[in-house]
Amino acid sequence: MKYVYFFGDGHAEGNAKMKEVLGGKGAGLAEMTNIGVPVPPGFTISTEVCTYFYAHGKTYPPELKDAVAENLARVEQSVGRKFGDKEKPLLVSVRSGARASMPGMMDTILNLGLNDETVQGLARHDERFAFDSYRRFIQMYSDVVLEIDREHFEHELFALRDRVGADSDAKIPAESLRELVGTYKNIVREKGGREFPQDVHEQLWGAIGAVFNSWNNQRAITYRKLNQIPDDWGTAVNVQSMVFGNMGDDCATGVAFTRNPSTGERKFFGEYLANAQGEDVVAGIRTPLPISKSQVVGGEKSLEETMPDVYAQLEDVYKKLESHYRDMQDIEFTIQAHKLYLLQTRTGKRTGFAAVKIACDMVDEGLISHTEAVARVEAGQIVQLLAPMFDVKEKSKAVQGGRLLGRGLPAGPGAATGRIAFSAERAVSMAKDDPVILVRVETSPEDIAGMHSAAGILTTRGGLTSHAAVVARGMGRPCVVGAGNLRVDYSKGELRSEGHEPLEEGDWLSIDGTSGEIIGGKLATKPSEVIQVLIDNTMQESESEVFRNFDRLLKWADEIRSLGVRTNADTPNDARVARLFGAAGIGLCRTEHMFFAEERILRVREMILARDEKGRRHALEQLLPFQQADFEGIFRELAGLPVTIRLLDPPLHEFLPQSEQQISAVARDMGWGFVELRAKVNQLHESNPMLGHRGCRLAVTYPEIYEMQVRAIYQAACVVKKEGIDARPEVMIPLVGTVRELTILTEMVRRVGSETLKANGVELPVIVGTMIEIPRAALVADKLGEVAEFFSFGTNDLTQMTFGYSRDDAGTFLPEYVDKKILPKDPFESIDQEGVGQLVKLGTERGRGANANLKVGVCGEHGGDPDSIRFFRTCGLNYVSCSPYRVPVARLAAAQAELEFKHYEG
Amino acid sequence: MKYVYFFGDGHAEGNAKMKEVLGGKGAGLAEMTNIGVPVPPGFTISTEVCTYFYAHGKTYPPELKDAVAENLARVEQSVGRKFGDKEKPLLVSVRSGARASMPGMMDTILNLGLNDETVQGLARHDERFAFDSYRRFIQMYSDVVLEIDREHFEHELFALRDRVGADSDAKIPAESLRELVGTYKNIVREKGGREFPQDVHEQLWGAIGAVFNSWNNQRAITYRKLNQIPDDWGTAVNVQSMVFGNMGDDCATGVAFTRNPSTGERKFFGEYLANAQGEDVVAGIRTPLPISKSQVVGGEKSLEETMPDVYAQLEDVYKKLESHYRDMQDIEFTIQAHKLYLLQTRTGKRTGFAAVKIACDMVDEGLISHTEAVARVEAGQIVQLLAPMFDVKEKSKAVQGGRLLGRGLPAGPGAATGRIAFSAERAVSMAKDDPVILVRVETSPEDIAGMHSAAGILTTRGGLTSHAAVVARGMGRPCVVGAGNLRVDYSKGELRSEGHEPLEEGDWLSIDGTSGEIIGGKLATKPSEVIQVLIDNTMQESESEVFRNFDRLLKWADEIRSLGVRTNADTPNDARVARLFGAAGIGLCRTEHMFFAEERILRVREMILARDEKGRRHALEQLLPFQQADFEGIFRELAGLPVTIRLLDPPLHEFLPQSEQQISAVARDMGWGFVELRAKVNQLHESNPMLGHRGCRLAVTYPEIYEMQVRAIYQAACVVKKEGIDARPEVMIPLVGTVRELTILTEMVRRVGSETLKANGVELPVIVGTMIEIPRAALVADKLGEVAEFFSFGTNDLTQMTFGYSRDDAGTFLPEYVDKKILPKDPFESIDQEGVGQLVKLGTERGRGANANLKVGVCGEHGGDPDSIRFFRTCGLNYVSCSPYRVPVARLAAAQAELEFKHYEG
Repeated sequence: MKYVYFFGDGHAEGNAKMKEVLGGKGAGLAEMTNIGVPVPPGFTISTEVCTYFYAHGKTYPPELKDAVAENLARVEQSVGRKFGDKEKPLLVSVRSGARASMPGMMDTILNLGLNDETVQGLARHDERFAFDSYRRFIQMYSDVVLEIDREHFEHELFALRDRVGADSDAKIPAESLRELVGTYKNIVREKGGREFPQDVHEQLWGAIGAVFNSWNNQRAITYRKLNQIPDDWGTAVNVQSMVFGNMGDDCATGVAFTRNPSTGERKFFGEYLANAQGEDVVAGIRTPLPISKSQVVGGEKSLEETMPDVYAQLEDVYKKLESHYRDMQDIEFTIQAHKLYLLQTRTGKRTGFAAVKIACDMVDEGLISHTEAVARVEAGQIVQLLAPMFDVKEKSKAVQGGRLLGRGLPAGPGAATGRIAFSAERAVSMAKDDPVILVRVETSPEDIAGMHSAAGILTTRGGLTSHAAVVARGMGRPCVVGAGNLRVDYSKGELRSEGHEPLEEGDWLSIDGTSGEIIGGKLATKPSEVIQVLIDNTMQESESEVFRNFDRLLKWADEIRSLGVRTNADTPNDARVARLFGAAGIGLCRTEHMFFAEERILRVREMILARDEKGRRHALEQLLPFQQADFEGIFRELAGLPVTIRLLDPPLHEFLPQSEQQISAVARDMGWGFVELRAKVNQLHESNPMLGHRGCRLAVTYPEIYEMQVRAIYQAACVVKKEGIDARPEVMIPLVGTVRELTILTEMVRRVGSETLKANGVELPVIVGTMIEIPRAALVADKLGEVAEFFSFGTNDLTQMTFGYSRDDAGTFLPEYVDKKILPKDPFESIDQEGVGQLVKLGTERGRGANANLKVGVCGEHGGDPDSIRFFRTCGLNYVSCSPYRVPVARLAAAQAELEFKHYEG
Repeated sequence: MKYVYFFGDGHAEGNAKMKEVLGGKGAGLAEMTNIGVPVPPGFTISTEVCTYFYAHGKTYPPELKDAVAENLARVEQSVGRKFGDKEKPLLVSVRSGARASMPGMMDTILNLGLNDETVQGLARHDERFAFDSYRRFIQMYSDVVLEIDREHFEHELFALRDRVGADSDAKIPAESLRELVGTYKNIVREKGGREFPQDVHEQLWGAIGAVFNSWNNQRAITYRKLNQIPDDWGTAVNVQSMVFGNMGDDCATGVAFTRNPSTGERKFFGEYLANAQGEDVVAGIRTPLPISKSQVVGGEKSLEETMPDVYAQLEDVYKKLESHYRDMQDIEFTIQAHKLYLLQTRTGKRTGFAAVKIACDMVDEGLISHTEAVARVEAGQIVQLLAPMFDVKEKSKAVQGGRLLGRGLPAGPGAATGRIAFSAERAVSMAKDDPVILVRVETSPEDIAGMHSAAGILTTRGGLTSHAAVVARGMGRPCVVGAGNLRVDYSKGELRSEGHEPLEEGDWLSIDGTSGEIIGGKLATKPSEVIQVLIDNTMQESESEVFRNFDRLLKWADEIRSLGVRTNADTPNDARVARLFGAAGIGLCRTEHMFFAEERILRVREMILARDEKGRRHALEQLLPFQQADFEGIFRELAGLPVTIRLLDPPLHEFLPQSEQQISAVARDMGWGFVELRAKVNQLHESNPMLGHRGCRLAVTYPEIYEMQVRAIYQAACVVKKEGIDARPEVMIPLVGTVRELTILTEMVRRVGSETLKANGVELPVIVGTMIEIPRAALVADKLGEVAEFFSFGTNDLTQMTFGYSRDDAGTFLPEYVDKKILPKDPFESIDQEGVGQLVKLGTERGRGANANLKVGVCGEHGGDPDSIRFFRTCGLNYVSCSPYRVPVARLAAAQAELEFKHYEG
């Protein structure tokens, strides 16, 4: 078993493809060495040692010691210095390096190999530099390996600076630094209860152990959780000969991106510090300077100006790296005595804007193919291109001016500014005059109209999967949730934040759903360029490069993907937007949202409260024209595309008032007695409404409700058909658990449908299918497949029932479940492939077994989640359906899923 | 395809094994013919014609007509009469006969073949008989085939009786009957709009069609639903030459059981009516007389006395039939001119008491084996042997106190006390509040729902084979029939008995279905003999044959079964009872019931309301001694047997007060502010508590709760162990959905357990397992099987989540689902094999795949349901667990399941 891999002198034992074994950093160092980029020699201890380390009670494989010694000798030979040598000591850095980048999450030690003797060897050339390095090393090593608080060291450093009157570390004289080393060693003795280790090998093994241990420190664990990096990957350790950016003014250190990571602009972009070590840049102690002249905004001197020759070398290197890796690189470099060394290269993180632009530019530059461009952009990032934005300067001025009221979870990206409304009703009415921010403790389904009217939504409770968050993302509304430091007081009509004047209804408020910031007062916003071109028609395509790249990328994606993308839309406007975003139809049109509108809810309540079927039918007749008009509008927007309409789903009591006050108001409106109405409300109350009398169960009891809806659908189709519009309704029965439910209701749809068509003298093919959202439905999918013409997995409910988690209640334990790794992710965000996924797979197979032509889709929230989309592709689904603003994400993710699937399939 | 099967002259084309094709009656007639029992010749039209009839828009197979004609000719030849002949007309009966007995549910027509001409042929011998038969035929045919209300005919009959001064039909003179026939034909003309059919073939085919149609009349559908008879079995039609019990005083008709169907006593037991047709006995219009001398209680004359020669023939026949069928038979016979004819034989319905006694007696008689005895007793019926009886002393005091209102025939054993309801509808509605005694003159198939709701049934007319008697015995309801000294007055709503105050609807009444006594007012009931011997020790085994047979039968069952039977018990007393009933341990001990006791709930609430973990731990410490004491008690009762203890399952808010009033009271008790407590209650409120923060989810959040419970279990085990008692706790984690939950909590159990054992210096093997009650748990059972030492399917919750039915709410639609055949049965009563059953099967297979030694059981309600037990046996489960009183049922059902499984497996 090979545990250690050497790199140096233009050859390396590893290469870029060995990330699993060498980690990202080690693989990058090896690859750079191999392609002739100047890299200080060193070696990488593989991730397999980390695995061994944790599997064997934190011990090493027996053969490791020799392998390290042997490779250390090669490094000594390469640089002509010896580890621990008094005259020409070799100093090394010891750094972690996992398969995936985890910046700053694990520990690093520089200048290792210094002790009271070797420092003298260094001091012979430059005393100040030697003791500066030594004191840095003691502090870093003590912090990382000996676990002594760095505070103690820094306290002494600052005291020294005061004493000698130095306004920066660089101005502390050598003599004082030598003293400081003594002081530091005393701190180690006092706080650590031991002498600072003088044996350089002890130093090295201490550092290696610390790096392996750092894989499981709290920061690293949290980072991995947030970024979905498996715990068992482990880290490699890179031991590399030191080069010094802090040996004088002809030295420097810096980080750079080969293109702008924020905008994607094709310009070398980075920062450096002269006479400094790498950690100084990252730590932000000194403000770094721009690398390129083009970056300069004030009077700073760029590296291009101060060291034009080294800058030219750097340009050569970055071009070499970019064309070698064919992607934007994030590099670290050090200049020692005018000589350039590269210490790291990796694929650079970037914003959605940058990702799209870089991918498109590289296609234009001939560097990558369309397919590669599609694979390059993280699908979820593309929503950034759709969100409204604040003016950057105005926002930072507001924050600096003390207007930042607090911070919550960034639940829906984009910027919004508007007047505060504390209720959905107020939001609707206020929105007629000004943009509104709906501010609630939390939201519920009754607030939908208000949320729709609002420019943005703020809640003080709830997480990223709360009602507010989910609905807001679906609507494309900027949203901040769980802003715990803010208090909503409905009774006083105030929003309070400590240290600020309370805000009242009607006051201006701004929220940034991308950052989570909440800012008092008005801030100008503007729609994204994509929206301006595509939806609002306020900008020309030719004016917006952002739009053009967005559009190109998605078209390339469309050429690759086999999975269809539809949308969940309940209104003509949503349908229009989704179509512009590229939706190939509606996968879920919920009909109950139509029931909540002001002029309709009264009819709905009359229907529910009717004393007999006749009364219900009468009320339903009043509702029919409304539903029909809704469907007509949608069919017009989606001419030629399928529109899957789900018949009524929620339990009836959701349409009734709940509080005594509301009951009283409704009773008055409807001419009912309060007591009588309250009794009816109580009678309809359910212990577990999620598992109650809803969906097709309602239709079994009250067939007239679905009959009205079916009639409305067919009549609407007939009306638009006569206008020459190609309406393609698909009728979907929700909450089916047994084949008889589906048979009975499918027959009803067919019967009412043909009556209606006949009465209108129209012919129209309509297909009828079922939701698969109850575990039993997936289990009996072979039977259902004999009746249904399509399946649509309702993965929200399927997840609720398969796990036995009520989404409304799971907030009390689900976050802890993710924290404690009982679940890898929130199963409402990304489908639980292990459990719920089995039912999706099995339901699809069994359904297709009964009917090979069965169309199968997904219409839960998961339809817009890239990981879930990848899974659905492996299940062989025909399409996913998601909210309009997720359609571009789904198109891109579907293409990426296709690429992975084909790769996996061989 | 053969559609018609002849029987007669000592040979039949069918036999007893052809029930599927010939129906029960047809198969019986064929078999009796073959073994030499005197049966009037006839033929059976097979059930396949019924299937064809419904599949082809109520038409017949083309070849049927000829086949019927041909068989009719054979009958004519056999009896020497011709169908439709003026001189010697052949008359036939047309009767339904399904595979399973459905008494009185479908239609029958007698005397078919009479018309204005053929009646003359008959009248030549006996004019009165001829016209009596003709008027009966017209009425019956008009009712069944022409659908003319029988009311019209009866009205004329009663008017005629008054006119001629006859106090019974038998006393109406021939001339008047001839007139009556004319009147009847007028009724047909007026009410039916047609002439009464004179063509005998038209009569025959009309009757055949009516029988097939009657398969789907409402009564038949209801009966099949209650008795779980598939709708697609269909009925056969039996056409048989008539014999007449009403041709004079040397004629009679009767029904009999080869043993007493109520007690099982080995005595020929039956009733007859001289000079009557069969329908007269069943309809209960005249009170029939006993067959055997031994049955005589008053001064009636038995058949044994009036026709000793025929009685002797009948004894020969019944003995032949019983030894041929090796089971108790229910026979119908007719005596025509001193000659005996058998019209039907079938396995006799019997009470649970009779079933057990007959099975045991037949074993003793060498007729059947132990295995056959076990297979003979319907498992659910055995609970009758556990049903309460009246306290003898209290009853005799009531009788002596003048409360005995009368006496009827003991038609269904057991004691019942309840409020009087005079209609089935009232019985259904009143039964929601109190036990009900349904009191009717006689019952009819429309009363079935009311009979089901009633605790007991009383009729003033009819015999032991009347509708009321047969149905009540099938349902296990105490029943008294033919209480002739009581008068029901529906119009006044009174039950009168001379010398007593009339009773009204709602008054209390008591009936003894074993003795036939009817007693006014409420009477305390006392335990059955089995309970007295086994549980209460108030009776010696030697005193109770009932107990001895019960015990023998269950021991034979135990020898056969492989499936273990445990019990669900939460208290030492339940544990004791269950053990006495034969439970081999506890399969489910719920710990939360212990939390509700008065002195504990306060501690529980303190625990829930505690502001931090410390507060919770403090309250839990107070609870620990209670829990420990409970467990000690259970371990003592179940020494040497496994006790599966489920850790806390319900959500915490179940322990808190809900109404404002309760909250106020609790707040006062606990020294909390009302507002504060209400806020806490609201905070814990869940939208769908079934899917909320409960079970192991609570333990993930608040590990201290389970830690206390585990400590209490282990400490209790240590305490009793020191007393020398072999405690065998098994710890069960509820609501597991992911393997991590199980891993974390199993580790906790192990840790706390070994701490406790160590502290007590005790060694004890404890196994830890999980409920499988969440669909996901079944899906990931391969993973769970790696950790768990046992699985227990919680089929109640598994049914709720797999169907998405909240048991608390499903009442709004589930009855309708069963009515409309969307579901074959209530899935909470009998496991849904098609859906939920897949998860049980798959979970078991996957769990065993990971751990071949995994013990797997079921602890939902289904553990006591015979059909479900049969299914669990096929899944290969190790045991079922049910409530203590269902343990005998489960033992018997498990043995029967084993027999079926082995048979099925070949």
